[in-house]
Amino acid sequence: MVKIGIIGGTGYTGAELMRLLAPREDVSITVVTSRELCGTPVGSIFPNLRGFIDLDFSEPSDPALTECDVVFFATPHAVAMRSVPKLLDAGVRIIDLSADFRLKDADVWQRWYGVRHECPELLAEAVYGLPEKNREEVVGARLIAVPGCYPTAVQLGFLPLLEKGVIDDSRLIADVKSGVSGAGRKAAVSGLLAEVSESFKAYGVDGHRHYPEICQELNRVSSKSVGLVFVPHLVPMIRGILTTLYAPLRGGVEANALELHEIFQRRYRGEPFVEVLPLGTLPETRDVKGSNRCEISISYSEQSRTAIIVVVEDNLVKGASGQAIQNFNLMFGLSETTGLMLPALLP
Amino acid sequence: MVKIGIIGGTGYTGAELMRLLAPREDVSITVVTSRELCGTPVGSIFPNLRGFIDLDFSEPSDPALTECDVVFFATPHAVAMRSVPKLLDAGVRIIDLSADFRLKDADVWQRWYGVRHECPELLAEAVYGLPEKNREEVVGARLIAVPGCYPTAVQLGFLPLLEKGVIDDSRLIADVKSGVSGAGRKAAVSGLLAEVSESFKAYGVDGHRHYPEICQELNRVSSKSVGLVFVPHLVPMIRGILTTLYAPLRGGVEANALELHEIFQRRYRGEPFVEVLPLGTLPETRDVKGSNRCEISISYSEQSRTAIIVVVEDNLVKGASGQAIQNFNLMFGLSETTGLMLPALLP
Amino acid sequence: MVKIGIIGGTGYTGAELMRLLAPREDVSITVVTSRELCGTPVGSIFPNLRGFIDLDFSEPSDPALTECDVVFFATPHAVAMRSVPKLLDAGVRIIDLSADFRLKDADVWQRWYGVRHECPELLAEAVYGLPEKNREEVVGARLIAVPGCYPTAVQLGFLPLLEKGVIDDSRLIADVKSGVSGAGRKAAVSGLLAEVSESFKAYGVDGHRHYPEICQELNRVSSKSVGLVFVPHLVPMIRGILTTLYAPLRGGVEANALELHEIFQRRYRGEPFVEVLPLGTLPETRDVKGSNRCEISISYSEQSRTAIIVVVEDNLVKGASGQAIQNFNLMFGLSETTGLMLPALLP
Amino acid sequence: MVKIGIIGGTGYTGAELMRLLAPREDVSITVVTSRELCGTPVGSIFPNLRGFIDLDFSEPSDPALTECDVVFFATPHAVAMRSVPKLLDAGVRIIDLSADFRLKDADVWQRWYGVRHECPELLAEAVYGLPEKNREEVVGARLIAVPGCYPTAVQLGFLPLLEKGVIDDSRLIADVKSGVSGAGRKAAVSGLLAEVSESFKAYGVDGHRHYPEICQELNRVSSKSVGLVFVPHLVPMIRGILTTLYAPLRGGVEANALELHEIFQRRYRGEPFVEVLPLGTLPETRDVKGSNRCEISISYSEQSRTAIIVVVEDNLVKGASGQAIQNFNLMFGLSETTGLMLPALLP
Repeated sequence: MVKIGIIGGTGYTGAELMRLLAPREDVSITVVTSRELCGTPVGSIFPNLRGFIDLDFSEPSDPALTECDVVFFATPHAVAMRSVPKLLDAGVRIIDLSADFRLKDADVWQRWYGVRHECPELLAEAVYGLPEKNREEVVGARLIAVPGCYPTAVQLGFLPLLEKGVIDDSRLIADVKSGVSGAGRKAAVSGLLAEVSESFKAYGVDGHRHYPEICQELNRVSSKSVGLVFVPHLVPMIRGILTTLYAPLRGGVEANALELHEIFQRRYRGEPFVEVLPLGTLPETRDVKGSNRCEISISYSEQSRTAIIVVVEDNLVKGASGQAIQNFNLMFGLSETTGLMLPALLP
Repeated sequence: MVKIGIIGGTGYTGAELMRLLAPREDVSITVVTSRELCGTPVGSIFPNLRGFIDLDFSEPSDPALTECDVVFFATPHAVAMRSVPKLLDAGVRIIDLSADFRLKDADVWQRWYGVRHECPELLAEAVYGLPEKNREEVVGARLIAVPGCYPTAVQLGFLPLLEKGVIDDSRLIADVKSGVSGAGRKAAVSGLLAEVSESFKAYGVDGHRHYPEICQELNRVSSKSVGLVFVPHLVPMIRGILTTLYAPLRGGVEANALELHEIFQRRYRGEPFVEVLPLGTLPETRDVKGSNRCEISISYSEQSRTAIIVVVEDNLVKGASGQAIQNFNLMFGLSETTGLMLPALLP
Repeated sequence: MVKIGIIGGTGYTGAELMRLLAPREDVSITVVTSRELCGTPVGSIFPNLRGFIDLDFSEPSDPALTECDVVFFATPHAVAMRSVPKLLDAGVRIIDLSADFRLKDADVWQRWYGVRHECPELLAEAVYGLPEKNREEVVGARLIAVPGCYPTAVQLGFLPLLEKGVIDDSRLIADVKSGVSGAGRKAAVSGLLAEVSESFKAYGVDGHRHYPEICQELNRVSSKSVGLVFVPHLVPMIRGILTTLYAPLRGGVEANALELHEIFQRRYRGEPFVEVLPLGTLPETRDVKGSNRCEISISYSEQSRTAIIVVVEDNLVKGASGQAIQNFNLMFGLSETTGLMLPALLP
Repeated sequence: MVKIGIIGGTGYTGAELMRLLAPREDVSITVVTSRELCGTPVGSIFPNLRGFIDLDFSEPSDPALTECDVVFFATPHAVAMRSVPKLLDAGVRIIDLSADFRLKDADVWQRWYGVRHECPELLAEAVYGLPEKNREEVVGARLIAVPGCYPTAVQLGFLPLLEKGVIDDSRLIADVKSGVSGAGRKAAVSGLLAEVSESFKAYGVDGHRHYPEICQELNRVSSKSVGLVFVPHLVPMIRGILTTLYAPLRGGVEANALELHEIFQRRYRGEPFVEVLPLGTLPETRDVKGSNRCEISISYSEQSRTAIIVVVEDNLVKGASGQAIQNFNLMFGLSETTGLMLPALLP
């Protein structure tokens, strides 16, 4: 029985960790913290967990954390970096859903997040937890940086073509769309139903924190520094991310839709959570609502010699808590799919 | 391994049966029928089931149905009654999610459904599958009539007070509200997002088919024929039913909120799928989205001497397919909660 | 050209006043205040008003207010009562959309709103601005208390039957449902799209501030103190209120649906903003989205001898700002419908 | 008083024409047709029009049409082309909201719409009714082809840069998103709230009928045949279109965000319905809900030398019926903005 702690249990990713872990019999959630709601029963904030999680939120300093086998951070940025070293020293393994350990360069991190990184020495050790790319490093890791929601979808969509070297990596475009749970569970006029329902908008066109993360990771498989335009949009729905990716073929490369499709099929053969759709089929975010699956379609515009890749995921599952658990399973030698093979909720 | 057939697999209750049954290892769905989509893979209509259900829809006359241990009907009314006798003769047990076997009086059925009942001789045998009321009959049943979505919520809310005889059963009011999946998955202008989103309405004020079913069942526990006003409303959301029930205390009865609350707690103690909320807590439909749980709150207006009972359920789960599976578990001697103990999807 | 000031211009009722008044050529909005956003252009908060309102928000103490012919308060409760006396002294007429002058009894007000009323001497003078009931008093008023959103719909639905004395006023039930804009434009987790979308709930069952207002006003036309059960619900949509009212006929009264319907038709004949629907037709909130119209349907349950009245309105228009303007038109001797006769936005 | 006929009055664009025209005192809607609902009052289908339009739907062959000054076609494609010649002969001017007269080449039309064009001889005469581009031709026109909803937004976004010759017209990308009313008011499972709410998808990646229209019109101002990738998406909301346009600068061109912004400001100076937002401000579809306004923002990615233009409009207003009326105003010598200067409905 693996003992699990969750720091930051009142946000959506914390709640989603609990939803996915609570029914399992091979793990036990022993502590869930919340600074503001210390002493409050978890089930009074998340009624869906009543009867499944019989805990009160405790202080983030709860000593029970050091007795856990693994601690998940479901916190805003700049929280995990303050507690991780101490927990690692106590022998606890860490899965951080926040941004603290995603970027390898502490200066870049500081530029985008506005505060100095407090344990830059751990950045090199931290494993970027995208199993479809780094499965082997995940297995032995002490510290996992779970990818951001947009970066997961964007990378899974570009990787096969970048790895094959068939696209012009200086001219990539990612037009990405997210449901509002991506903004978190915090009081803000901008997230009110009366403000965001029945509306659609772009945001962060001049700079989004997921941009450096995506570039860092694409650069690892690209022949040179990628050129990427990244435009996020807000969809009036709770869950789901869809990314529409545009990748012009490299000069001299000849390809058609069928060949591009095969590149994806080969790349993701055997992946339990990535499904390459048949040519001509397009995904919808509801196909994966509540599920850890990611669906990908490939189209090709001959006239513009441009591949169009559409990727969907549930931002709270494959884009956050489900992927965190996928990493957890790998780290602890469990079957990678444990607790994650349930059909999406449709309709 | 119990062999299961599903007739009418292209509607929402059929899809929900498959979502809930597919992950189970003690059952096997061997045939799913659809008149229109015969030959089409189930997963192409319900992408959430790709990888979970590897079947094509087959003809409703598929002989494989007679080799099933149990067949679920997820059809419109007036379909099951035409096939049930033959299947029963073949030794197949039946769980009918439609209305065909809910009413005991064939004449009343004909009046509300507009066609003659084709096997009235089975009405007496059919067990009304509300386990919280008829658990023992369910266990031995060959033929289950799964209650309607509204009737489930209305009965669970009124039963404890009716059984105790503390309310004036001639003056009951049920103001009920449902998400749009209750109208089914059929092409109709009235169900378009552009027609029902951002709007709220009452409907069926002058007569709804769930009305005679509710009255029939309440009358079984009432001292006399109940007087019920029943007004359904449509909520711009996919899933969920909330009923607000008004029950004036019988003349001479003295009670307060605490005593009424205790009546509910005692009545539903040990029920795995009915949760009586603490006094002062009100349920929301999202608490039970995708789950078989039903939540009930009790309030009391002293000035008007009226109990106010609020009940929520997921219309596709406890209001249909989940309840059907609860019945199935009981019929086949399995633990009643098998496959149904997963937290709701929140947010 | 009537000069208009608006205090509290950053909420939804303030924005709606501007939307409805800006296109008019007989009035001029000269000052709009906001404590927090002083100095910010109105159009940067409400982009729909860019090009229509060329003002910055100013301080609530802006002396320009005393030069207005009329000032609308679109503020939370306990704000207007602090400024109204001074403005009245300066000869400014007041239309208060908040609750400060709705209740006639300062003690009752204090009990429900939690603070002492600061100008109880004005409560008697304030005219309750429901023109369908108090049109004549409105015409000469200096100070209008605009009714709450729920009270408007509930009163318009009960009044005809109460005035005729045909219903048992000790057993009234109002099951009311509102879109989320009724909760205002304020930062709160409870109003997030991810919290309220795809869900439905009851709230305030044990006490809502509109309850004493409704009782006070119904008591004016009732033979005795009414007995009312009032249960509000939250609908996952932006605008709209629907109330379902249950009124049992008084003992000895004989009536049928047709007669009840005629009572409504007679009562509202000639009312520009109240439409009594034909028997058998039910309203939807979208019928009146953005419009000052109120639609009413009447049904009758013979078995339970109960009238069922369904009323819809746009909570921000007939339930707030539109009704405020209707009062304004009357106060200033303009045609009552000026600026308010535009079709609802459908779909 | 201009006499107006509307053919195809039961769809959303027909209803929107009526909503916008009904309050006007300079026009009179004298006939509204519907094949299916002939004889039904308009107000029973569109309750928002009760009291504003006192007509029954009549037959499409209603002779009253020939007595109109102008007839609007709010029909599916391949309807207008069958009636337009006769009406023109009768001296009636035509504003066609369908696709029948948008393409200049009858063969291209046939390829995309699947039927032979029945009056190709009128294609040359038909004026493409985008006033911001063709205002002068509109004034004298007998026959207007109102642009499609996507083409309006895409053209308004690309035109200024194409006209200036600063972008590489072989590498344009239009990632476009629309609310569901764009699919019309027709019975289809794919439009049900339970199917499209809480989901987001791309569609028509391999070919959408608005593609040839956009190319035809962009080619008129481009130095050579444009290369365009066009990907439409469906947003779970009723109204609104947002397009995100990507335009790489032509080789050798130097520009920054400020200069690009100035190009837009100069191009649209004085346009009553196009608003170029300040640099750094992004539009939302709700800014223009129910309004004829189009908002445009310009951003620039230096690294990728790509202009990013975001355009929003209400698909039923500037994308259809509002634009049709804008054309009508011009054709009949009225002020272009008559009846169209009302603030959007927000929230």
